[in-house]
Order: sequence, then C-alpha cells, then structure tokens
Amino acid sequence: MCGIIGYCGPRRAAPVLVEGLKRLEYRGYDSAGIALARVDQQASETSETGEEPGPLRVIKCKGKIKDLRAVVPADLPETTGIGHTRWATHGEVTDENAHPHLDSTESFAIVHNGVIENFHQLKDHLMAEGVEFRSETDSEVIVHLLARAYQGDLAAALKATVSLLKGTYGIVAMHRGEPGRLVGARNGSPLVLGIGQGEMFLASDTTAILGHTRQVVYLEDGEVVSVTADEYITSDLRNREIHKEVDHIGWELESIEKTGFSHFMEKEIHEQPEAIRRALRGRLDREYATGHLGGLNLGSRELLEVGRIVLLAAGTSYHAGMVATYALEELVRVPAVAELASELRYRNPLVERDALYFAASQSGETADTLYAMREVQRKGGRVLGVCNVVGSTIARESDGGVYIHSGPEISVASTKAFTSQLAAFYVFALLMGRMRHLSFDQGARIIEALEAVPKQIETILANTAPIQALAKRYASCEHFFFLGRGINYPVALEAALKLKEVSYIHAEGYSAAEIKHGPLALITEETPSFFLVPRDGLREKVITSMKEVKARRGPVIALAVEGDREVADTADEVLFVPEAHPLMYPFLLAVPTQLFAYYCALARGCNVDQPRNLAKSVTVE
Amino acid sequence: MCGIIGYCGPRRAAPVLVEGLKRLEYRGYDSAGIALARVDQQASETSETGEEPGPLRVIKCKGKIKDLRAVVPADLPETTGIGHTRWATHGEVTDENAHPHLDSTESFAIVHNGVIENFHQLKDHLMAEGVEFRSETDSEVIVHLLARAYQGDLAAALKATVSLLKGTYGIVAMHRGEPGRLVGARNGSPLVLGIGQGEMFLASDTTAILGHTRQVVYLEDGEVVSVTADEYITSDLRNREIHKEVDHIGWELESIEKTGFSHFMEKEIHEQPEAIRRALRGRLDREYATGHLGGLNLGSRELLEVGRIVLLAAGTSYHAGMVATYALEELVRVPAVAELASELRYRNPLVERDALYFAASQSGETADTLYAMREVQRKGGRVLGVCNVVGSTIARESDGGVYIHSGPEISVASTKAFTSQLAAFYVFALLMGRMRHLSFDQGARIIEALEAVPKQIETILANTAPIQALAKRYASCEHFFFLGRGINYPVALEAALKLKEVSYIHAEGYSAAEIKHGPLALITEETPSFFLVPRDGLREKVITSMKEVKARRGPVIALAVEGDREVADTADEVLFVPEAHPLMYPFLLAVPTQLFAYYCALARGCNVDQPRNLAKSVTVE
Repeated sequence: MCGIIGYCGPRRAAPVLVEGLKRLEYRGYDSAGIALARVDQQASETSETGEEPGPLRVIKCKGKIKDLRAVVPADLPETTGIGHTRWATHGEVTDENAHPHLDSTESFAIVHNGVIENFHQLKDHLMAEGVEFRSETDSEVIVHLLARAYQGDLAAALKATVSLLKGTYGIVAMHRGEPGRLVGARNGSPLVLGIGQGEMFLASDTTAILGHTRQVVYLEDGEVVSVTADEYITSDLRNREIHKEVDHIGWELESIEKTGFSHFMEKEIHEQPEAIRRALRGRLDREYATGHLGGLNLGSRELLEVGRIVLLAAGTSYHAGMVATYALEELVRVPAVAELASELRYRNPLVERDALYFAASQSGETADTLYAMREVQRKGGRVLGVCNVVGSTIARESDGGVYIHSGPEISVASTKAFTSQLAAFYVFALLMGRMRHLSFDQGARIIEALEAVPKQIETILANTAPIQALAKRYASCEHFFFLGRGINYPVALEAALKLKEVSYIHAEGYSAAEIKHGPLALITEETPSFFLVPRDGLREKVITSMKEVKARRGPVIALAVEGDREVADTADEVLFVPEAHPLMYPFLLAVPTQLFAYYCALARGCNVDQPRNLAKSVTVE
Repeated sequence: MCGIIGYCGPRRAAPVLVEGLKRLEYRGYDSAGIALARVDQQASETSETGEEPGPLRVIKCKGKIKDLRAVVPADLPETTGIGHTRWATHGEVTDENAHPHLDSTESFAIVHNGVIENFHQLKDHLMAEGVEFRSETDSEVIVHLLARAYQGDLAAALKATVSLLKGTYGIVAMHRGEPGRLVGARNGSPLVLGIGQGEMFLASDTTAILGHTRQVVYLEDGEVVSVTADEYITSDLRNREIHKEVDHIGWELESIEKTGFSHFMEKEIHEQPEAIRRALRGRLDREYATGHLGGLNLGSRELLEVGRIVLLAAGTSYHAGMVATYALEELVRVPAVAELASELRYRNPLVERDALYFAASQSGETADTLYAMREVQRKGGRVLGVCNVVGSTIARESDGGVYIHSGPEISVASTKAFTSQLAAFYVFALLMGRMRHLSFDQGARIIEALEAVPKQIETILANTAPIQALAKRYASCEHFFFLGRGINYPVALEAALKLKEVSYIHAEGYSAAEIKHGPLALITEETPSFFLVPRDGLREKVITSMKEVKARRGPVIALAVEGDREVADTADEVLFVPEAHPLMYPFLLAVPTQLFAYYCALARGCNVDQPRNLAKSVTVE
C-alpha cells in the first residue's frame, strides 16, 4: 500500500510521475503529490559552485490521482521528480499529510512508504530543537533528519538518516542542490529501480514503470541506491558498493490495463480459467500421475521427511491456505494448519524439525507474512514462498517456492490470486500425496479433476446473468452470512471478505455447523444466509443448517451443484455450479461468490477497484 | 437444546411438568406442551382387562412457558405426564409443531430431543400406508412408528421404534393403556432419571428435577428405561437388563435461581470470582509450584510423552480453547491448536500418537464436540473432558478430565464457564509446564498471578457504571468490531459473540492486525471498534491499529490497563482493568466485554436470558 515513483532523465517529469501514480493508485488513493527539482542547464552547472537553484516545486492534495492531475500544469519544465499516492496510517487524510514532505528550507523532499515506529521520539527531539512540523505523519521526521544530516552528499545523508529510524520504509529523496539525482533506501517496503534509455525510474512496484522499461533491479533491505539519468550505484549502509543483477519483467502492458472490462476486479475474475491454466502449466506429470514444481529447492528425501505443513498468510491468502490444509491432509495425510501470519509472529512459535512452512502472498510484500516468514527462518524453519509477483521480497527471501503466474493483480479485492494459489497448493499436495499413500490411479484422477477446473469455471463465467440478478435483489441488505463446511468453510470466509471489501455489506463467514452456537441470534428476515452446498459428504449436514435458518425465517440462498433439486427446493434462491471432484469445489464455489460481491458493489454504486479504506498489498504490519 | 420432563407418582403431574419446563426454558423456548394420562383408580385397574381409558390429554402452544402455563388448568387430576419445551430445527414455530406428538388414535404421546436424519424416508413410508401427519417435525414419525410397533409392552415398542431411527434422540413416551408408566430412550441426547420418594422423573437435564430429588441415574446411548412411580428398569436394545449406578447431585437449588439479580446472565457474570476460585481450589500446589488435577487418569510418564495438544470445542468453549493454546504453547512449549469440533469430525483427522486431546463443553452434551471426541477416540486418540455438568456425556465418555465446578450455567450466553474453562486449562498448562521448562520460581509466579485473578475481577465488578454508561451510548450501533492480538485475539472473538448473542448487534471479532487485509472497508463513523489493549508485548502494534481506524474516522473504544494514558489519549472512549500478569489479561478483559454485551442488550430491550433463535447446550449437530 502507498505508491512511490521517481524519475530522472531527459523528459518532463510531471506527466511521467502522474501516469506512474495512476498505475499505482490501487496501492492507495486517499491523497497524492509530486515534487520537482528545477534542472535547467544553468542550475545543474552552478550546483557545484555553491549557488543554489530555487526551492523545490511541490504539488499535492487529498483525493484521487485525477484530482492531482487537475492541479498539475501540463507544461512544467522539470525533468527530475518524485511522486507518492498515499494510504493513510498515521494522521488523517489532508493536503498537509499528503507526500512529498519538505524540510523547512524547502530544499529536500521525500516520499515514504512504511511505518516509522519511533517517530514520536524523533519528532519530540526535533521539535525541542526548533523544527516546525507541517503534517501529522510519521514520514515527515525523515525529511527533517535528512536536512540536518546533509553535508553535500544526498546518499550519505540518507544513510545517516535511516540509521536513526526504527520501523519500515521505502524512501526516495531529492535535494534542490543536486537536481538531477534521486536517492532511495529500503527496509521492509519494496523499492525497484527501472533502467531506461538515458533515464531512470524508482518505484515501489513495477507496474508504475512497465510502460517505460522492462529492465529492473530489486533493492533489498539495508540497501541504498543513488540514481542519475545515466547511472546508478547501489551500496549498503556501511558504504560498501553492491553489485546487483538486472532482472527482466515478463508481463505485457495490457496485463495491467482493463482491456474492455469495466473494472479490474471484473477482468481478473474472468481471467481465472487462464490464470489457473498458467498456474498448472508444466506442473502436472501424467506419466507418473504426480505434480512437478521446479523451484522448491527440496529433494525427494527432504520432502519425505516432512511431518507437518504450516501455511502462513493474511487476508485472502490465508483463506486459500485454509482450503489447502484440507486438500493437503486428505491427499498427503500429514497434519496441515493455516496460521494468521500476524499472530504466528508474536506467539514465539514452536518451529519443529519436520515442519515445512509456506508463506503465501500475492504481492510477495505483505508485511505480516514477510515478518512471520523471517521469524520462522530465524528459528531454523524452512519456508517456501507462494507468490505472484516475481522478484518480490518473499519470493527472494524464501528458501524456495512456487510462482502462481496469475499476471498482475490490480484489483484491491483479490480474486484470481486466490484460485491460482489454490492451484499451486493442489499441485504440491498431489506431488507429496504421490510420494506417500496416493496410488497412480488416484493421482491421475486428481490431475484430471484439476485440468477440468478451468473449463468448469468458463461455464460459470458464460452465464453470469442469474448471479447479477440475485445480487440486484439482495444488494440492499446490510448483513449477510456465508456458510460452508469442510473444505468449503474457508471459501465461505473468503466470500464474506469479498462482499465486505467491495460492497461494504457486513458479511460474515462461518462454518455452517457453528452458527447454532450463537450467531443464529442475528438471523431475521433482513439477514440472508448464503450456503455453499456442493455434492460432498457434508451436503446433508448443510441442508440441516439451511432448515434451521429457514425455521428462523432467514432468507436462504444456496450455491449448489447443477440439478440438485433437494437443495433448490429447500432454499429461497439457488445458483448452480457444474458437478466436479469434491476437492475442486472451492474453485467453483469461489467464482460465483466473487461475482456476487462484484455485482452487489455495482448495484450499491461502490467504487469497485478502489474500495473505501483499503489498498493493495499491505506492506505495513 | 430442547427440554424434556416426565413425571409419574402420586402428585398431580401438570404443575410438576410446567415447573420443570420453566427450569428447562433456557434450553429452548419457542413452543411447549404437556401430555397427561388419565390414571384414575378405575382406569389403571381396567387397563389389563383390555378396557381402554380415554385418550391422552395434550395441551401445547407456541410461545414461552408462561404462555403454556396460562392455558393449563390448575386442577387437572392426572398423575402421569410428559412435557417438552422446543427449540425448532425441523419445521417452523407453530402450535402443531410443538411437542408432545400424538399418534392418530391419540393413544401414544412422545417428546423428543435430537434430529431424526432419516425422517423423510420414514415419513414417506408411513404416508404411503395412510398415516396422516399433523406437524412438519421430524419427531412425529416416532409416535406413529411406536403405535405400529405396540403389542402390549411400551418399552418393547420403543425399542422396536428406535431401531428404525437414524440420528439422535432423547425420547420419553407414554401410552394411555399403561397410564402409570413412562419409557425413555437415548442416543446422543441426554436423559436422566430422577428417583424420588414414591415418584419418578425423567428429564433431559438435572435442573428440571433438582427441586424434587438429588438421586439420579444418567442413561447412556442405546439404553432404554421403563419407569413407574416405584421402580425403574434399565435395559439395552437387546433386552439385556443393565444395572446403573445412582449418582447424587451436589448443587444447591439456589444455584439455579436468580437470587436478586435481574437476569441469569448478570448473576453468572458476577459469580465469576467465586467460580474461578472453585475451579482453582485444591489444584494449585505451592510446595512444588505446580498444578494438580485429580481426574486426568494420566501418569507423569504419559504426560511427559505428550508432543502436542489439540482442543476440541464449539462456540464460547472454542474461544476458551483458543486462549488456552497461547498459554499452553508459552508455558509448556508444546504445539497446541484449537479446532472447531464440527470441522474436525468430518475432515478425517490425523490422530497422532503423541497428541493429547481435550473436549471442552460447559454442558458436556454439545453434539459437535461429543462426536468429534468419539471420532478421535475411535482412532485411538486420548481425549480429556473439560466440562461443567457432572455426569454429562462428555464427562463420562472421555478418558479422564477436569470439572470446572462453575455451578449450573443457566444463561444461554455463556460467561462464567468461559473464565472457569480458562482457569482449568491454565492449571493444566502450569502442571505440564513445570514438568518441562518452567522453573520453580516461574511456576510460583503463575500460581500467584492465577490466585490474584478473582480479586482483580471483583475490582472490575465493583464499578460497572462506566461500562453501563458506555453501553448506553453505543447500544444503537448496528455494527461493531472487537479487536485484539495474541492471547487476547480469541477474547475479541468471544466479546463479539457475546454482543451478537444477547443484543443482536452484528459484532465481529478480528485480530487487530488482520483488519487492514479487508475488513477496514466497513469502518465508518457509525461502526465502532472495541480494542483490547492490555500492557503486553503487542500493545504498540494495537495502538498502531487504533490509529489506522481513527484515520478512517471510525469511533475507537479501548479496554486498557489502569493508568495507560497513551491508550486513553488515542481512543475516543476508554475502560480500564487492573494491571496483571500478561497471561491473565484474557480473564480481566473478558469480564467488561460480557458486561458491555449485557448492558447493550438491556438498552436495546432484548430478552437477555432467552435470546432470539438460541438455546442452551446445542445437542444436535
């Protein structure tokens, strides 16, 4: 969350920055701003003689990027600058709290992602020395520290500054006395360098620069980069230069555009068949009826010694992990558990010798998951990453892992990453299962079932009208329950989260068995219950729960398997999915609930791609 | 849920039955009824000659017990009868669906707790043979089957009937031709026989008969009892007589009365200091700074071999189990996990050799927990019970266990059982911890901290005015978040459940870290967030979450430690608890949230002790 962009090169910086911020808007969008350095011929020549060019130009305001664009003149001459789109953590959403932040002399500007935990102490200290603060942000301390540390070299000043900070940061800074230069530093918040033809970019996220270059360098924690139009130098905090590899981004630009859909969320829901195919491609081995995953960095012997599996994640990825635990236990017959990463980190976890951990995060930057992973690694645990973004921090720091290859996920409400994560976990379950109790035949059946999923989802996507009509009928409800059992219980949790995120309906997920232990008290004629009731061993039990809700006059919606008359007769409303292998229902049941959330949000007039209070990839704890 | 009472003896049955139902009302209260057999001298003498006495008298209606009482004449002469208070599962709440149910000739009456899973098939079968049904209940099939099976012996007919049933039941039946006799059978739903002076009782729960006798016999699954005023015979379904032990109930009658409080919920909240003392009594060993639990049936050697701990439970007990996992992992350094019993049962759980299971249930009759326990036992796992009700099914069938000694919990919303379960788990954690890494000093500190808890809760209970005032200010909100971290995260879940249960406010609990992964979208000026923020290692992180909510203009209520100015300054509202050992905060934070739920319910005019749609101890799956 929050987005950073920096540019230096021959072009006018302002439009490049604003366009980059537009691409980053899914990361945060409550306020935005840019700062520009005046790099005319004169200024850059006189800078070394001690003559100072004029103050930095800063334009910032609360609101979306379009609000910023409206106040940025088209013809600003500056060719170096930094920009930021904010998602508030400390301090309300105001013009003053927007980034970039300036020091008192307006010579230094910074943009910052992350949270400075000791900002209170630093601020008190600076205020005691007479520094006046203009904002309520934690970030503003950085620019004042930078100004005080500056002795002619911006990179050195930034290193001195970050050594005082406790917390997380991705920072890009500029100084009016060195107008063709940007410096960046990271600790916990991602920062990537884009290398263009005679121009350079710094960004929190490759989507911001994909239109300009595909050559990128990912910074790591504790690294500082100094950039001019033609060169960059990376070093650590002890001034040792670091040689970095240049990576190549494989995505096409259209993958981050809406391509005819109304919203990224809608587009990404519809991309799921293709995304799942990509997640499975080359990973299903029909000859041995098993799975194949290249990046695990684990030999068969090591896999054989795995005695339990722990999945670390947050939000939607946590729900994917919960589904995976059911599939893993069933196919591998090894205990599997999903843990909220944020909770695991602080409970002094017991890391067992035979445990294998997964850290699942679409962005690969989720702070909660990243820190939990490091905590486990610190204790000697082995952690595999399950990420979408190539080169992301979790992907790099994990001991191996799986890319889900969904392509960029721009919608704040995650959809395709959920089903693609499932696909990746299922391949792993198949691989491990076939090393243990699964026969060739059983393995072959799983492969067949997995390969059928994209087509089954296409069937669902080909007929969204009933889902849309249902959403219209129920979109005015303020409360909703989603209820499932077994492997589809986490799908109910995820369905509730989706509806919350984009439609702001207070939806809650439960195991269908659990509502009678309290939540049933909320059931009235105004509180619908949405039951996931596929043809599996728990179907009868779910029908019993449906009847309990009906007996309390709660409206009952059922998502059932095509042709299930009994469920259709019991429910007030019914949607259907194709019949499938019991383990595959989480894929098929997730898609209609995603669409239901999407259409409810439309019906309520919500901004689907920029939901209230939320932003993509939560890179603070 | 649902309550059964039966009486045969010299007294008029109707008032005994209605009074018993009143005691059972917390188990279900949407409709109720009684059936009475005409036992005049004549009838009983002529019954063996084949002359039939008149039809059974049945009085039943929807509504509460007071509605039933209003329609039961005071002077009914019958001295044998059965009664039932219903909590609907199959079929709506109507007069017809109320129990007792009669056969077509009005010669047989039954009351039934539980769920008959194959009732559809049985009903189709009976209807095909011309039987007319008067209700939509699953239970009615039982009485028709009974009438068809009757060949002069009611007990034999009941045995023949239950052999056709799939599902769970506690049944009491009567026949007008054997007017001084009751028969009962159980499978999965509790049934207890009370032995009086020349009179007998059958009930689903000892509270119904505590005013009459303390001598009881607990029936087990597969047993049938035949009762007259003077004697009882217990046998199994193959007609083998079974000798049962007579138990003695230790509770006082006042323990099931309100004794000056407005509601049982209020009374039980206030009983917590004493209940915790009882749960700890005789279990803290200062000499060795350890815990002592008599009923575990496990030697030190066996305890030493425990490699992991799994807690099975539902609803409030599940939340207590979750808290316990944090305490167990910290003190014992063995992995501990809480599982929803309903989910574990159907996931074909892996039962490991070194795992120790706990089944926690206040009533000891929670069907989900009971069946999960049996599933684990079937796989060779060892399960200890943590129950309140002595002689309950879980207490009897578990491999050992701990009684929490809270005294009867009548309030549907569980309060004292939550904190007493914690106390029991903590004693176990202390015992196991002292066998492993805890030093004498550390053990002594835990004992001291535990013994301080009741007094600390008394401090909270001595000053409820601020909680009541807060509840009044926020009772009109329709949405609420409860947020905590670490060991207090499950306390947030429990706080949300309490508010849901009694005030019908849609409250939801989350880890404070997790809201930024989606739920934050619901935050508005109308959705308050209630933060649990004691002085522990996660305090800073929780304060950061509070600020995130504040930045989105959500009202923030904090429950903090006395004197914590920073929290008080950050929040809009603050309540305080005394400072304590970090592991003890779950006790102290739970109590104000229980009171908050109670006062919100009062402010909203809700029926606190009989919340909508809910009933005590869920004895169906």
